[in-house]
Amino acid sequence: MRFMTVTSLGECPYDSPLTHYVSDEVLVPAGIEWTRGQVPLDLQLFEKAGPRAKLYFDPKQVRAGIVTCGGLCPGLNNVIRSLVYGLHHQYGVKEVLGFRDGYRGLDPQRGEEPIPLTLDLVDDIHEEGGTILGTSRGPVDTKTAVDNLIRLEIDALFTVGGDGTQRGAKSLYEEAMRREYPLAVVGVPKTIDNDVHFVARTFGFSTAVEAAREVIANAHTEAHSVHNGVSVVKLMGRHAGFIAATATVASQDVNFCLIPESPFVLNGDGGFLAALQRRLVARRHAVIVVAEGAGQDLIPGETGAVDASGNAKLEDIGKFLCDEITKCFKAQELEVVVRYFDPSYQIRSRPANSDDAVLCDRFARGAVHAAMAGKTGMIVGLLHGELVHVPIGLPVQSRKEVKMDGDLWHGVLACTGQPAQFA
Amino acid sequence: MRFMTVTSLGECPYDSPLTHYVSDEVLVPAGIEWTRGQVPLDLQLFEKAGPRAKLYFDPKQVRAGIVTCGGLCPGLNNVIRSLVYGLHHQYGVKEVLGFRDGYRGLDPQRGEEPIPLTLDLVDDIHEEGGTILGTSRGPVDTKTAVDNLIRLEIDALFTVGGDGTQRGAKSLYEEAMRREYPLAVVGVPKTIDNDVHFVARTFGFSTAVEAAREVIANAHTEAHSVHNGVSVVKLMGRHAGFIAATATVASQDVNFCLIPESPFVLNGDGGFLAALQRRLVARRHAVIVVAEGAGQDLIPGETGAVDASGNAKLEDIGKFLCDEITKCFKAQELEVVVRYFDPSYQIRSRPANSDDAVLCDRFARGAVHAAMAGKTGMIVGLLHGELVHVPIGLPVQSRKEVKMDGDLWHGVLACTGQPAQFA
Amino acid sequence: MRFMTVTSLGECPYDSPLTHYVSDEVLVPAGIEWTRGQVPLDLQLFEKAGPRAKLYFDPKQVRAGIVTCGGLCPGLNNVIRSLVYGLHHQYGVKEVLGFRDGYRGLDPQRGEEPIPLTLDLVDDIHEEGGTILGTSRGPVDTKTAVDNLIRLEIDALFTVGGDGTQRGAKSLYEEAMRREYPLAVVGVPKTIDNDVHFVARTFGFSTAVEAAREVIANAHTEAHSVHNGVSVVKLMGRHAGFIAATATVASQDVNFCLIPESPFVLNGDGGFLAALQRRLVARRHAVIVVAEGAGQDLIPGETGAVDASGNAKLEDIGKFLCDEITKCFKAQELEVVVRYFDPSYQIRSRPANSDDAVLCDRFARGAVHAAMAGKTGMIVGLLHGELVHVPIGLPVQSRKEVKMDGDLWHGVLACTGQPAQFA
Amino acid sequence: MRFMTVTSLGECPYDSPLTHYVSDEVLVPAGIEWTRGQVPLDLQLFEKAGPRAKLYFDPKQVRAGIVTCGGLCPGLNNVIRSLVYGLHHQYGVKEVLGFRDGYRGLDPQRGEEPIPLTLDLVDDIHEEGGTILGTSRGPVDTKTAVDNLIRLEIDALFTVGGDGTQRGAKSLYEEAMRREYPLAVVGVPKTIDNDVHFVARTFGFSTAVEAAREVIANAHTEAHSVHNGVSVVKLMGRHAGFIAATATVASQDVNFCLIPESPFVLNGDGGFLAALQRRLVARRHAVIVVAEGAGQDLIPGETGAVDASGNAKLEDIGKFLCDEITKCFKAQELEVVVRYFDPSYQIRSRPANSDDAVLCDRFARGAVHAAMAGKTGMIVGLLHGELVHVPIGLPVQSRKEVKMDGDLWHGVLACTGQPAQFA
Repeated sequence: MRFMTVTSLGECPYDSPLTHYVSDEVLVPAGIEWTRGQVPLDLQLFEKAGPRAKLYFDPKQVRAGIVTCGGLCPGLNNVIRSLVYGLHHQYGVKEVLGFRDGYRGLDPQRGEEPIPLTLDLVDDIHEEGGTILGTSRGPVDTKTAVDNLIRLEIDALFTVGGDGTQRGAKSLYEEAMRREYPLAVVGVPKTIDNDVHFVARTFGFSTAVEAAREVIANAHTEAHSVHNGVSVVKLMGRHAGFIAATATVASQDVNFCLIPESPFVLNGDGGFLAALQRRLVARRHAVIVVAEGAGQDLIPGETGAVDASGNAKLEDIGKFLCDEITKCFKAQELEVVVRYFDPSYQIRSRPANSDDAVLCDRFARGAVHAAMAGKTGMIVGLLHGELVHVPIGLPVQSRKEVKMDGDLWHGVLACTGQPAQFA
Repeated sequence: MRFMTVTSLGECPYDSPLTHYVSDEVLVPAGIEWTRGQVPLDLQLFEKAGPRAKLYFDPKQVRAGIVTCGGLCPGLNNVIRSLVYGLHHQYGVKEVLGFRDGYRGLDPQRGEEPIPLTLDLVDDIHEEGGTILGTSRGPVDTKTAVDNLIRLEIDALFTVGGDGTQRGAKSLYEEAMRREYPLAVVGVPKTIDNDVHFVARTFGFSTAVEAAREVIANAHTEAHSVHNGVSVVKLMGRHAGFIAATATVASQDVNFCLIPESPFVLNGDGGFLAALQRRLVARRHAVIVVAEGAGQDLIPGETGAVDASGNAKLEDIGKFLCDEITKCFKAQELEVVVRYFDPSYQIRSRPANSDDAVLCDRFARGAVHAAMAGKTGMIVGLLHGELVHVPIGLPVQSRKEVKMDGDLWHGVLACTGQPAQFA
Repeated sequence: MRFMTVTSLGECPYDSPLTHYVSDEVLVPAGIEWTRGQVPLDLQLFEKAGPRAKLYFDPKQVRAGIVTCGGLCPGLNNVIRSLVYGLHHQYGVKEVLGFRDGYRGLDPQRGEEPIPLTLDLVDDIHEEGGTILGTSRGPVDTKTAVDNLIRLEIDALFTVGGDGTQRGAKSLYEEAMRREYPLAVVGVPKTIDNDVHFVARTFGFSTAVEAAREVIANAHTEAHSVHNGVSVVKLMGRHAGFIAATATVASQDVNFCLIPESPFVLNGDGGFLAALQRRLVARRHAVIVVAEGAGQDLIPGETGAVDASGNAKLEDIGKFLCDEITKCFKAQELEVVVRYFDPSYQIRSRPANSDDAVLCDRFARGAVHAAMAGKTGMIVGLLHGELVHVPIGLPVQSRKEVKMDGDLWHGVLACTGQPAQFA
Repeated sequence: MRFMTVTSLGECPYDSPLTHYVSDEVLVPAGIEWTRGQVPLDLQLFEKAGPRAKLYFDPKQVRAGIVTCGGLCPGLNNVIRSLVYGLHHQYGVKEVLGFRDGYRGLDPQRGEEPIPLTLDLVDDIHEEGGTILGTSRGPVDTKTAVDNLIRLEIDALFTVGGDGTQRGAKSLYEEAMRREYPLAVVGVPKTIDNDVHFVARTFGFSTAVEAAREVIANAHTEAHSVHNGVSVVKLMGRHAGFIAATATVASQDVNFCLIPESPFVLNGDGGFLAALQRRLVARRHAVIVVAEGAGQDLIPGETGAVDASGNAKLEDIGKFLCDEITKCFKAQELEVVVRYFDPSYQIRSRPANSDDAVLCDRFARGAVHAAMAGKTGMIVGLLHGELVHVPIGLPVQSRKEVKMDGDLWHGVLACTGQPAQFA
């Protein structure tokens, strides 16, 4: 057994104002497949999240901070609101500051002043997409940020963001530890791509899939209404094709689903273009869904450029596919009508649907409980439906991917009828 | 360890046409909370669902049947479609019959002839609510039905329905066993209330919550726009308040959430009406969500009547609450404007949202794999995100309920601010 | 020619700050059907609405008031917002007061204090249904209200409401005239039923039809999924069946549409029940849409009671129909499954769709222009796409109805296939 | 008075099976603004559409054809369905052929065979976007098409399409006249841009505006959630900015609306970029809506290329604006985050909303009545809410535009706060 215990700031001298608790002794395993006759002995076990009986902080004295980073994702405002409500109503925390525009707002030189997050201010924000705090890409100087957090007397900092954000959060709590300043840094993982280990489903993912399915329906209508109509829909998914694959299964109207986990070739008998041609001959139209990170190896001139978050700048695989399809069929004098759909900004700016709203509320309450108990250097994870505490260091070592032998990908193959591989 | 092995029709002489398999030796535990330092030794373990390497039936010879029973639920057509597609495309099954109007359709005297379910017929049905097969409440005479199934040479029967339906399915496969007729009876659990054990989430539930949230938003607007506006929203939930509780957390606009698991009293200082009055004095409006099965003990003249499915006929708790509220505040000369919302038919007739569409597809493919491998007397379950085989007898012994000390109910208490109990 | 000139408060000494104007000499006729060879000579002609070059009030000195009355209707907040924006941005009016909870708010004894409507306060309100001012039914004592308006130094009062509201508005301006207090009373007609003369389309109507169509789709699914399913949908329409008829044409899934303008009988060969039976025998299911004011003569025990607005309390025709259908077919041993849909509160509490949002904005800007020019005792009307000034006295003399020989009703007959009359 | 009489095929010997009629003597004027004291004497007057008492064709012998051309538009399937239903149910026409893939389908050498449009086939098509007949751009050889129509014994051809389509329709009926073949050619005008004279609102426009408003909401969220966020939304509108302007008023969240009717300059103090900069300094974010045909004069390298329909290929003004904005602020070291939204395919492929569904039904029934009465060389128009017959030659002489001194544009200026001109 491997116990994935998270760091604690220290003793917990204060009684919780709540009436129910989860003990640190309750654990949830990462793996749940048993083989008949064998007791699994090498499981990773994580602390179950939830309120603790004893607190590290005196809630009445706590000043908390919240920061949202990176690209938009449905549910950011829900998380902000439930953090504020959880702190106020469940623990009696009076002061919550919202840092502006991502990590930039932790640096008083670069960002605007943080704003006090009152109950009134956050009352209706969960009905809207985006983040009322604003967001940005890119890191902050760790020393400057910790100086500022100490100056502002922040006890607990909630970092809502992706892996870059949580790496930054790790640096912040380590720097605070070094200075012996007791700072609880608790991350709420945010990735619309749903590619974080130990987080079965990230918030915003369900909303994104629903929105993607609507666009696929449009794409299907366009392709279906002309002779040899081909619609190409590019969806989010830099390293993992969860949105593309899940929306494909939800829609059942997709004929080809291309994701980063399953490399493909364009040309040759087993290639994608030949398969597309067979489809058009048989059925007169085709819908192609492609994750933005798929097929990057096919595009000449990849530059290695990175954005402010340090993510590699991707070539536009959707546009590339449209061009290749047009070129290929022109060469064969097969008339096609190619339409390109690139709806990412429309998808990620939506308000959270109910599934995500509930998830955001759970994550936020779990994060509040953890911080009040003095947990730090952790994110809230989700294993098999249970919230858990995950040390920040763990999940960033690799990314969760669509398994080629799992139920999701088999669902894709079943409903598209596409070959297991284009090779 | 307790192995929840399902019945098999016998040896599996045929090779599967698929290329990936799950072994019968892979198991999933029902419980996943460990206590630090202890290996859990008394877990219920279920076979993981999925394609098997060897089949009981020769797929080319198989004739399958599908029946949908009970009240409408988003996703019924998705299940039908994915069953047909899974049988056809994955196994090459050529004949699938759709029985009409629930169990009535298994009796040739009472029902219409079954219809052949072709790929063309089911192509677009997942975009619509309801069930193209029709449905009804109530049982069928077991002997008559089995006579008919044998006459029609049905090898595999997929029963889509609630606990009454699955009890009926159990009788069918037992009767077939008695006659030594190899009939695979595989159930797909259907309950919009989400109250089946070993099924973490039933299809249609997510769609129902989303639809309920929209009605709650309307109810909030109505209550908010008049002086002392009180909106009462009755939602599905005969024995379990999952829809009411989850929609409450998703909405965050509810002030009181009443479910069957948490009995309440109306009168007295700690009662519901006094709490409502305090709310109105403080905030001028209130939104109440009540599950249909809540507070049945409060309504005089409960009759013990049952419907065709054998379910107790419930008194209308929503209407009752409206009347009691009106009466109570009239007596106190407090002017209130009470509005009643009863949207159940509007909710359950919707098409499935993406989360449910994916779930329906998974359940249906899991059911097809199980039937082809000769599993019978089982339903497809869902534990911690994994599909499993559940013997039909198990889940019907009791119902899943909202746990009073669980995360969902704590989420409700946090966002409504209502007391843990009205007593 | 009959010129429907509205009352003016007097000379207009101030220059408008705007740059475009409509002259009082531009008129729009009520009737636009010409007969070949004849110039129509007896038309009612209305002033076209729009900004005037000269103003009665000095905008910088104006204090305006807004009140919303009666039942909810999509778009109320849009009207409030565009009134405030139009007054502020287009004319520089600094003070706008919002009276609370309908006419009750005009009486300082009965209502709460009015609230200052700032740009910030109204910024996002158009995205929500309901009215931020609150509403109520029933009149206010005219003298008390005018005392209060004079005390508050209100120059222009915008009354958003139905015919009762506008009758009240007429009394207010007449009382103010009597006292020689220059009060511009300009009404924005509000009736979700769309039954006001000289207003081709009232705001909220389009949204209501869209929402009604969705419920009809649900009702169709329910009816279609069981043997002899009958869905009854009751829609708004006390005196006029515009919503029922328009939603029927939009949906194309309705088999019977019953409205107040077309009385019907239940029994006998030509009656509604016999027609329903023929439909069920032929097609196994039926969808019935009924306007709330239809068939009132059929319901025994009509009481003559009225609500706070003076509207006759209607019997529940939907419930009555369900009971009669159940009774009738039970007597004939024809099994039917009857479902009742009563979605009015869900419909009227929605936010405005785009068509209504645009209409609200137009009405509000038209009302502002009229008030600044000193027009009073009028409502803003809409003739053939053009906004006009309508003296308050005119439209309340009768109600607009669905014409039995017009395009809308013929559309209903064409898509339902129902007989022109049940008799 | 100018009577815009449409061509008739000749005497009408047959009695209509309907029971209500509109006389050819009933006319509707194009203009409805009167000046006080003057009877307008130079009006264009159009025949009111509707059923005629006498028919040119014997309905039982009629064979009709339908063709849909050009880009997708919400409501095409509604029009097809209501044409088929109107012909069948109202007149007893038994045979309706659907030509495939636009005008190409009129040429047996180039297109697929037409399909018989039965009631069953069209039953549910109005719930889906696109066109079940397929569509294409570009003309057909007139002689070939008329040969084919005569060969197929088509009596009435319904051409659903834009101005190019209707010009083609004119050629078809003229060629048929030349050959003395009595062919009723009746057009249903289709332009999502809403830019056809004598058609107050084209079908699909309302749906497009609603969809555009949703994208604007997304764009607003994106812009609002980052520092100096600028969202650019390109909407349909080659020659007229109706969609852009109407969606701007509906949304109220747009800061700049650019349409073809209002040329603008980018640079200089009065230019667009300076105004944008002022907005960003004041408010930190901006939403720009631009019609695709706006600002074409600003883009270097305009090529004069045309598409298959003969429409000039437009440069991508949205992309161009994004580039210019980025360049401009980079030069000034003002950090901005520019996002581009190009949702046209997602908008036009939607199913019709209720307003459009009703309009499609009206247009289709009006077209059927006209054809049966032997009208030809006409389109169905809409003046002030009344359907009229419009000779095909008329509307194609110019395009309807957003009037700079009209209510719509003033609504845009009021809600954006943008200057009347960027110059």
